[in-house]
This record gives sequence, C-alpha cells and structure tokens, in this order.
Amino acid sequence: MAVLMHTLHVELGERSYPIYIGRNLFREGELLSRHVTGRQVAIVSNETVAPLYGERVRLALPEDCLVSEIVLPDGEEYKTLDTLSVIFDRLLAEGHNRSTTLIAVGGGVVGDITGFAAACYQRGVNFIQVPTTLLSQVDSSVGGKTGVNHALGKNMIGAFYQPQAVLIDTDTLHTLPPRELSAGLAEVIKYGLICDEPFYRWLQEHMSQLQALEEGPLAEAIERSCSNKAAVVAEDEREGGLRAILNLGHTFGHAIETAQGYGSWLHGEAVAAGMVLALRLSASLGKIDPAEVDELRELLTRAGLPVEPPPDMAAADFLELMQRDKKVIDGRLRLVLLDAIGRAEIADSVDPEEISVLFS
Amino acid sequence: MAVLMHTLHVELGERSYPIYIGRNLFREGELLSRHVTGRQVAIVSNETVAPLYGERVRLALPEDCLVSEIVLPDGEEYKTLDTLSVIFDRLLAEGHNRSTTLIAVGGGVVGDITGFAAACYQRGVNFIQVPTTLLSQVDSSVGGKTGVNHALGKNMIGAFYQPQAVLIDTDTLHTLPPRELSAGLAEVIKYGLICDEPFYRWLQEHMSQLQALEEGPLAEAIERSCSNKAAVVAEDEREGGLRAILNLGHTFGHAIETAQGYGSWLHGEAVAAGMVLALRLSASLGKIDPAEVDELRELLTRAGLPVEPPPDMAAADFLELMQRDKKVIDGRLRLVLLDAIGRAEIADSVDPEEISVLFS
Repeated sequence: MAVLMHTLHVELGERSYPIYIGRNLFREGELLSRHVTGRQVAIVSNETVAPLYGERVRLALPEDCLVSEIVLPDGEEYKTLDTLSVIFDRLLAEGHNRSTTLIAVGGGVVGDITGFAAACYQRGVNFIQVPTTLLSQVDSSVGGKTGVNHALGKNMIGAFYQPQAVLIDTDTLHTLPPRELSAGLAEVIKYGLICDEPFYRWLQEHMSQLQALEEGPLAEAIERSCSNKAAVVAEDEREGGLRAILNLGHTFGHAIETAQGYGSWLHGEAVAAGMVLALRLSASLGKIDPAEVDELRELLTRAGLPVEPPPDMAAADFLELMQRDKKVIDGRLRLVLLDAIGRAEIADSVDPEEISVLFS
Repeated sequence: MAVLMHTLHVELGERSYPIYIGRNLFREGELLSRHVTGRQVAIVSNETVAPLYGERVRLALPEDCLVSEIVLPDGEEYKTLDTLSVIFDRLLAEGHNRSTTLIAVGGGVVGDITGFAAACYQRGVNFIQVPTTLLSQVDSSVGGKTGVNHALGKNMIGAFYQPQAVLIDTDTLHTLPPRELSAGLAEVIKYGLICDEPFYRWLQEHMSQLQALEEGPLAEAIERSCSNKAAVVAEDEREGGLRAILNLGHTFGHAIETAQGYGSWLHGEAVAAGMVLALRLSASLGKIDPAEVDELRELLTRAGLPVEPPPDMAAADFLELMQRDKKVIDGRLRLVLLDAIGRAEIADSVDPEEISVLFS
C-alpha cells in the first residue's frame, strides 16, 4: 500500500529533525526504525491510547529491539513529577541504558512528560514523538517544550528538548472525540491569526471539510500549522522574544484553566475564549477593526469552540491569575495582541484597566 | 582588603563562563552580583554549610534582591527527586519567576541537585556555583553535569547545564573535615594521571603543602585541575568520547560505593582505590611500568587515601556491579586505562578475565 506523505524539516542546527505527516505511516516500518539508534525502546502512552495504537507502533520496530511498554493513567492531573518517577523506575528496572529511545504515543500530556523523561534520563536519550491528537500534532510536536505541572502552576518544571523525529499519522484523528478535535482547531486558527493571513482565510473556507476529517485539507492544515510554528521556533528556540507570539490567547486561557480547575475546560477551548479576549483588547486599543473580532467568533463557533469566558469569572479573577503567569517578568503584564490578522505583536506593559473594561 | 584572584574561562561557545579562584571572594560583592541578572535569588545549601557560609553569600548580594534561603538535609542519600521537589515547592511558593538565579553553596550534592533544579525550573533559570569542598571545586564546578540519584543507580536522572559563573573561595577548605580534603585530592591526582604529567610530578613535590592548606599551592592545584577538566570538557561537552577519560578509576569506584552503600566510602576514596586498580590493570596489560603503580600508591597514601578495595569485595562483585554502570553501551565493558602517566586511553572491550586476575 502506497503511503502519501509530507515531510517538513524543523531547522535547528544540530538539533534539526523531520516531521512526517500522512496516513498509515506505520505500514512503512522503516520510517520509525531509522530514528531508533540503539537496540532498546520504551513506548510511553496512556490507558486510552495504548489499546488503539500501542501494537501498531510496536510492530513497526526492528524485531531485535528490547521494547518496554509504559502505560500511564490518562489525564492532565497525572502530568506530575510522580508520574515522571514511575517512568524512570521502569526504565531502570528494565535495564535501559543511554542508547535507548523513548517513543511518546499520545496527546500533549504523554508527549510533554515523555520528552522531559528523555531529556533527564541518564542526562538525555533519544526521543521520538507520535502525537495522536490534533492539538499535539500542531502544537507540542514542534518547539521542544517538555515538562510537568506543579500544584502551583502548569508546566513549571521542564526542559527544552528536541525529538529525533515526529510521526503524525492523520488516521489517529478518526478515533479522537469531536470535542478534542475542536480544541486542536483552536491552535490551528491561532497560527493564521498570528502570522499567516492567507492560511486564516483558507481556514474560513475549509472549516467544514476539516470538521468532516477530509484527508487532504486535514494534512494541509497540520502541515501549515507546523511549518508556521517551526518558522517562529527556528528564530527563537529558547523563548527569548518572538516565540512569545505563540501565546496569543494563552495568558487569558491559562487563567480560565486555573480558575475552572484543569480538565473542566480543554486547553484549546480556553485558548479559543482567550483569543477572543485578546482580539477584543486589540480592537479596543484601536489596533484592529472590531469586525475582525466578529469574524473570529464565527470561525471559532463553526469549529465547535467557545467564544466567551466562563460566566463566573470577573475582571479581577483574570487579573489576579494572569499576574502569576510565568510570562510575567519582574511584575509587568505582557500580552500578545494583534496589529492585523496575520500580524501579532507583544505588548510589554498592558494597563490592567484596559483589561477590566472588557468585562464591564 | 585586596583580593588575590585567578580567573579561568571555560570555553563552551554561548555557554562559556568564568571560574574565580581565591581567598575572601565574597568581600568583593560585585563579583557575585554581576552574575545575578534579575532581582530574585535563591541560595541553596545544606544544614552543615548554611550556618558557615549562608550569611556571607547573602551579604554579597544586591540589597534590593528578594532572597530565599533553601536549606537541604546534608548527605548523598538526599540527592533525590523528592528533594528536588522540595526546592520547586519553595521557589513557586515564594514567587520566583524565570529571571531568578539559583546559587548553590556547598559540596557536590548541593551543586548537582541545585544545578538540576536550575535546569528544570521554568525550563531553565540562571545558576551560580559556590563549591565549598575540594572535590566539588575541582570536579563538579566544571562540566555542567547536574542531577539526582535513583535507588537503582547514581546520577541516573539529570541534565547537562552550565552555570553563569563558579566562585571558589579557598578559605572554605579550612572548615572542611580532613577526610573530605583527602577525597578531593583523589580527583586532583586523577587530572595529573590522565592528561598532565608535569602536574602529577608537581603534586608529588607539593603534597605536604596541600595537606597543610598552604594558600599558594592550593589555588594552583585547584586552577590546574579545573583547567585540565575544562580542556577535556570543551572538546566533548556531552560526553560523546574523550570526556570518558575523566572516569579513570570511577567504574571500579562506583562498584565500591554501590557495594558498601553510599556514604560509607567517600566518592574520592572509592576513586582512589579504583585508580590503583585501573593502573594495575594497565600494568598487567603491559601498557605501563609496574613501578608507576607503586608511585601512585605512595602519593595516594600521603594524601590520606585508601589504595586497596574493601577486603570483602571479590572479582565477581566488581564484575557484576560494573556491568550495570551507565558507561556500558550495549553490554560491552568500557574502562579508562593509562598508556603512560599523563596519557589516558579508553579500552572499549576489556576481557572480564583480565579483571579477575587482579584479585587472585
């Protein structure tokens, strides 16, 4: 069976790696095994994903490999140092050495925690990502951010660590709950907003096909999202400046997630409502036309996403939680705003009063 | 008061940093504060070192800094993920953001765990080392190895992470127990053996002055040790090849530490006995003159170090424990041997029989 595949290269000098996008990628066993450099592999997934794709990944590996399968509980609440410790226990008990390769099969939580485990195990081992949700395919498969949460904040403990390769099998989206597909579309739309107006317009035209999981448009949307993110990350691997534009809607979004408790709003849903707030703020500061806010609301609604923050959150709740965000440098409030569709800018010291106005 | 200071630069491209060596370095407040880039600092030390040097470091910091003092229990048995978690709890509870600086004040355990905390906290913050034992001054202050132990192996979880600067105040050695001074001298002697014969001869001449803590020879020995290590690390930052020569005596030494339980033999003591075994093996393979082994025994004895492995350890104990070492790649036994004093070589597949002979 022929494999139709797109390959995107993330250019980061000696840490460059390929992203393969297509259907049935595991039928081509060689694709995965060319990035397994030793004879030991640990497949890390969770209770939901392991029964669906664990076997498929295992079969694509060379026969003489020692393969450990580590199945984590499913959910953001398990993205902790304790779960990380469970991975290390298994790797050591089963004799994995420095030449081992960790393969993350699952969504963002599995990818983040496995990537961090790979960064730390014996001070760094090989790592391959097989993201199985739209959100992780377009977001966490590019950028090298890995880590775990802390009771006092998300992603507070982690490392920048690049994979050897990312395999995105679009077939996996057929088993994804529709609500999670929508959450992924929030990040897809974000790339259009921050740096690619033609892509944003394309999304307005193709949203129904994406919702219907049509293969061509789906692969196109994933590839353009990854390539937009890769371009931003290549310029700013360690988040010194430009990379911050990827956080459009995220500072508001994190406040929503924290206030509602992780898991009640999906990350993409919180980002969707957060992007509406960021565009409303941009409009109220005279940077964009208010009509653009309405267009975004319409697109997000068609993608199955919320466009308003939770009714029980007031301006004061947002301000308090946003001050805690790790993007705050020495107390100043930094936010990503839009100058135009496809052009983000970082506002370095936003007046809290401007935010309050959005809720009055 | 004038400060007599040597400055050594560790050249690692954009991760280069200075090592300052001298007496009373904290009197020059500017020396420390020039490497504190934000307005938040956390001083991490342990119960033994904090009362001796905590205040001195604190007074050398800018007055407008938020300073947290984190005091860990003293001992290798606390070099764990749990202790790391305690550091993260404190940093988050006290509001440390990405611009914070962690300062490690103590020996190798404090340095390794604090460096790893700095590598992971918010995916990487500033880090300054103030090593207060001879071992940490000549070993862990160069090389960027950070991490914690696991029940199934030492240093199994960690990162390569370079500090912004290292401050070595030789006055701290006056409060160091003599047994720990000796342990540090084992690593000093190692640098002579692996790559600097003139330094080895110099050590044979100056061992009494070093034991008497004479300032000139002490600073000289520290500087030459650091510069030898820096030269090796600069060629091989992530331990691909050459850097392995720094492990002379360490594979045997780790076996001793593991068999006796961490803490009963000091690391430097185990390395001393391990270096004798490595040189005996080199001699029995015809690489060096057996008289060199006797000279090493004599030098180590004058430094207050053991020259024989624990009497209850047989060849089989060593072989079993050495197979578990993380320097074992796909089952082959790699060892550092000497071709001559000042010239180490990596033997890639040593016959276990050759090791057994040493114990017969």
